[in-house]
Amino acid sequence: MPPVGPVTRYALLGPGAVGGLYGGMLAAAGHDLHVLARSDAAELARDGLAVRSVWGDFHVRPVVHTDPATVPEVDVVLVALKTTANAALRTLLPSMVGPRTAVVLLQNGLGVEEEVARIVPGAAVLGGLCFVCALKDGPASVHHVDYGPLTVAEHGATTVTAVVRRVVDDFAAAGVPATAEADLAVARWRKLVWNMPFNGLSVVLDAGTDALLADPSTRALVVDLMQEVRDAAAACGAPLPEEIVDTMMTMTDSMVPYRTSMKLDFDAGRDLETEAIYGAPVRAAAAAGAPMRRVEALWRQVEFAANRRQTAPR
Amino acid sequence: MPPVGPVTRYALLGPGAVGGLYGGMLAAAGHDLHVLARSDAAELARDGLAVRSVWGDFHVRPVVHTDPATVPEVDVVLVALKTTANAALRTLLPSMVGPRTAVVLLQNGLGVEEEVARIVPGAAVLGGLCFVCALKDGPASVHHVDYGPLTVAEHGATTVTAVVRRVVDDFAAAGVPATAEADLAVARWRKLVWNMPFNGLSVVLDAGTDALLADPSTRALVVDLMQEVRDAAAACGAPLPEEIVDTMMTMTDSMVPYRTSMKLDFDAGRDLETEAIYGAPVRAAAAAGAPMRRVEALWRQVEFAANRRQTAPR
Repeated sequence: MPPVGPVTRYALLGPGAVGGLYGGMLAAAGHDLHVLARSDAAELARDGLAVRSVWGDFHVRPVVHTDPATVPEVDVVLVALKTTANAALRTLLPSMVGPRTAVVLLQNGLGVEEEVARIVPGAAVLGGLCFVCALKDGPASVHHVDYGPLTVAEHGATTVTAVVRRVVDDFAAAGVPATAEADLAVARWRKLVWNMPFNGLSVVLDAGTDALLADPSTRALVVDLMQEVRDAAAACGAPLPEEIVDTMMTMTDSMVPYRTSMKLDFDAGRDLETEAIYGAPVRAAAAAGAPMRRVEALWRQVEFAANRRQTAPR
Repeated sequence: MPPVGPVTRYALLGPGAVGGLYGGMLAAAGHDLHVLARSDAAELARDGLAVRSVWGDFHVRPVVHTDPATVPEVDVVLVALKTTANAALRTLLPSMVGPRTAVVLLQNGLGVEEEVARIVPGAAVLGGLCFVCALKDGPASVHHVDYGPLTVAEHGATTVTAVVRRVVDDFAAAGVPATAEADLAVARWRKLVWNMPFNGLSVVLDAGTDALLADPSTRALVVDLMQEVRDAAAACGAPLPEEIVDTMMTMTDSMVPYRTSMKLDFDAGRDLETEAIYGAPVRAAAAAGAPMRRVEALWRQVEFAANRRQTAPR
């Protein structure tokens, strides 16, 4: 089924839970999707991608590649790798990026666009912030459990650019609640207001969002951490409204109990995105004169937990 | 065997590890010791108190009481209860405290002397800071594993008072490395520089001092926490030398791997001394304009861990 508008050619790097869901929605809407896969390339090529989703289950058959050189030049590259794998972008991106290609980073944290802009200096680099609970529940299989709004903004821009508009229109027409934003830094810091408290605390205290909010001590700590991130964001030129902390708390109270992405990674023995979610913003805040002391302390506890896990006997 | 100097009449409230060791050393040196006991009163009365100690094993037969009313008026009351039991001092102390009685609080934290000074307004109230690794390894039995220096200072004084000198002399003559100090606040904050980082982190991260110092992330965090406590101490009128952080780190590096008292309490399902070790100093620092943000965050994590332990099915 072709889309209502023109067909866009997408490449997807990282067909995990996030990439599978968002790339899959585009493919299901009729866009071209070229997936660069590794561990489940054979299953993807043979069976296609199955997505069980609160938006409705679907199944798509993207073009599957195992070599980046076979991916054609595309209109948009969706990067849905873990940020811990971003060093690979230096070799993965150039062959599929042409003069009019946009790269959309469906990733957490801060500072990831700067890195990519250096690799493909001519390309538009966009950030895509996914607020979603999804997991890979097998090869070529994604379970989208809840939520899913997507916010897109262009790195280095101060307005909603034409390329942001096009990407958002594609997603929106495909059924993804997508929003265009003018200021990527604001969008990224807004997400950090949630991610920095909950990702770290969930790992260090082995707790879900529900337990952290039910206890008055950690509830107060979450508020303090959020406020500290908001103060840092303002110092870094990304002012967020005062009510964002209340809004995030209310939203999280109403969420189903949630293991954060960092907690899922921790429990599965995968690398943690500590650099993108903690390292880069902590350094940016300190450089801007608004050090995040509580957040930094939490970051160090997370590193301890991650290091211990790696050195512990299996 | 009578002591070299005059015999002092001591009462001991709380014959646990700390009380048993320090009270026991005095009794072994020939001082009168009246012990108010609860759970192991029968064993203490029947068998006396056995102390296995790095200073040499010993055995003493104090006078054992189960009712505070039968304890005579004494020269010195040693309070070695957990601070979590301090509410009981209102009923325990008055009958054994006369016009010349001194009360020595062998306790952690901050603010405990103020509370006792209100209960026995006429008495000299002293703080005794024990740097010791000891545990109760059975009824009427204490195992003194390592260390043991004691620092004594009088609440509300600005010099080494005569009563401090007498208590220190008793301990020193009994073989305890005891030091008199002029400023109790300085002594208490100095101990907090160690206790606030290590007690909380050991509980939250389920780690000993060795693991916390071996990992570069938590090692840096310990230094940050210590510095934060030192800054707060200065704001609270208890200036500590700049090198105290280095000194504490070096000392802890050379210690045998150590489970903190709070970790021992946590693992044993006992109440934690969070109010004395965290609550009172955190509030004092905030009131003095030097909020301990990292320490406060750690405190809240400890409370979460303690609350979860209490509500978890046994």
